[in-house]
Amino acid sequence: MAYKNYDRETYLNNFREIMRLKPQIEKYIDDAFEKGVDNLVMAGVGGSISIMMPMEYFAKKRTAMPIYMENAAEFVLGINKAVTKKSLVVLYSESGTTKEAIAAAKYCKERGIPTIGVSGNEEAPLQDLLTYPIVCGAGDELSCDGDHMKLFLIVSAVLHKNGDMEDYDEFIENLEKLPEALADIKEKVDEEAKAYAYQIKDETYHMLVGSGNLWGSTYCFAMCYLEEMQWIRTKSIQSPEFFHGTLELLEEDTSIMIFKGEDETRMLTERVENFAKKISKKVKVIDTKDYEAKGISQKYRGDFSPAFLEAYLGRLTAHLEDATGHSLDIRRYYRVMDY
Amino acid sequence: MAYKNYDRETYLNNFREIMRLKPQIEKYIDDAFEKGVDNLVMAGVGGSISIMMPMEYFAKKRTAMPIYMENAAEFVLGINKAVTKKSLVVLYSESGTTKEAIAAAKYCKERGIPTIGVSGNEEAPLQDLLTYPIVCGAGDELSCDGDHMKLFLIVSAVLHKNGDMEDYDEFIENLEKLPEALADIKEKVDEEAKAYAYQIKDETYHMLVGSGNLWGSTYCFAMCYLEEMQWIRTKSIQSPEFFHGTLELLEEDTSIMIFKGEDETRMLTERVENFAKKISKKVKVIDTKDYEAKGISQKYRGDFSPAFLEAYLGRLTAHLEDATGHSLDIRRYYRVMDY
Repeated sequence: MAYKNYDRETYLNNFREIMRLKPQIEKYIDDAFEKGVDNLVMAGVGGSISIMMPMEYFAKKRTAMPIYMENAAEFVLGINKAVTKKSLVVLYSESGTTKEAIAAAKYCKERGIPTIGVSGNEEAPLQDLLTYPIVCGAGDELSCDGDHMKLFLIVSAVLHKNGDMEDYDEFIENLEKLPEALADIKEKVDEEAKAYAYQIKDETYHMLVGSGNLWGSTYCFAMCYLEEMQWIRTKSIQSPEFFHGTLELLEEDTSIMIFKGEDETRMLTERVENFAKKISKKVKVIDTKDYEAKGISQKYRGDFSPAFLEAYLGRLTAHLEDATGHSLDIRRYYRVMDY
Repeated sequence: MAYKNYDRETYLNNFREIMRLKPQIEKYIDDAFEKGVDNLVMAGVGGSISIMMPMEYFAKKRTAMPIYMENAAEFVLGINKAVTKKSLVVLYSESGTTKEAIAAAKYCKERGIPTIGVSGNEEAPLQDLLTYPIVCGAGDELSCDGDHMKLFLIVSAVLHKNGDMEDYDEFIENLEKLPEALADIKEKVDEEAKAYAYQIKDETYHMLVGSGNLWGSTYCFAMCYLEEMQWIRTKSIQSPEFFHGTLELLEEDTSIMIFKGEDETRMLTERVENFAKKISKKVKVIDTKDYEAKGISQKYRGDFSPAFLEAYLGRLTAHLEDATGHSLDIRRYYRVMDY
């Protein structure tokens, strides 16, 4: 069967390329730790900070080493006093041209702060500035599962090296099986995601709710996809925060997307689901528990929930532009006017 | 002159009470440090996490000690491995009955993790659970400037004790002058805030943008005031993030509130202002630089910007319910139905 913007073999090949980065990343991390690493900093803007958010969750469950999430635009102002030459700064820019990522890399280079970063091609301006440059294409153009994969390799290697991940080999074995599991999800949900895309094509506002390690995808899908690429208004809100304000706006005809994962915070999102279903007739729950994910051990399903969710969202995005008749590529302002 | 929901003497008296907490707080912090403090955790939900956000900024500029911001509902799931008996956890609940704050206090008590917390009265259930309980009423019912004041006392005492604040006495001298400065702002802006309230009374959607230490107030005013108390849709977004999606929704008739402070990130917000003014005819900039704040040294204006902004927002809120005819006290669901 053929799928819009998706071909199983191409997708799996892309992910195989990502997995091939493992020895290079481990070597980088060994080198960084030889020089000393006191804390891990993840600095990004927009899509790139959002793909890093599940990694913060992944790391802080396992290590007492401080993990700092920094908006790259604020990071270069030097506000965080804990950032030193013994920090390791993770940067990410698919195009390798994101202004804020380049500025952050320059900032670090000038101060001798080591950086490890990913961009899609060797010629990207970001590459020259990084202490530990990684070149790798996207796993999937329409979702962030490939980005998660690359970051999992970096962060798990850091945790392992820091003595916080005895199960590193087991984790990597599971990570290797993730692409097949994600491809299965994409194929399984495609038809349903298409139907949902047509169902919401005329909505002008959505609430998006998620918690724990799904928050990054919740925030990103609202801002980078629905707002930027579809010009649809959104409010993204963390599940426990929903009850401190946004709930009052929910009415019978309010569209609300609830992203339910398998980490420790699952019941916080279930609480939103139970409430929302009493009020609105337009509640959409995407529950990663519905996906089989063959070969993935129960132990890691919670960690991989963000990638499972992205597998769904990638399919939804592919169909949404057809349903709304609004191409994902149109911009009013971004790279159209100077600001 | 008389002001709705505000009387200068009452306001200043409330703040004098807050300042009287200083010796008690210092004693608490001395005691906590005698037992050892490795990191500072601020845990809250909704309004309470938002008032803590400027404190994270205030602290991380001055100390390399890790500061963790935790959603209280997620905090009790024990996700952050860095939280130990040598953490100091800050909790806050004006009513002293917020479920999540109480659960967090219990969680800490059972594990011997020290807590310092504030609530409005001695009988509040939160009080019994805290290692270091503080009782103090609100500074202002309609804004968060009083909350900031209490938290400044706690966080500056921690920084001082940790050897990160040589200018502690000078800071406290300035903090003592803050209430008069805030009262002046409230009185000065009242008429203009009223006019703005009437100007926006029929708007059904606002973008709210702020950066750095103003982000907490931006987030809170959108969710706790406009959404919860006025049932108006909002999108709150950090200034550098605005350019990674939300900008595409801005049109000539889109209402956007831009909160401009005096910390290091000011120019990130100026960039949004410059862009927004090219597109929309409904741009409102609240710039704390416009306020005199007599007696406050230039050195601390950036730190106090969130309180300056709150002084304005308190007046706006007071008039907004008259302008919209929607009382601040009506709720559809909160404490009306069980969920």
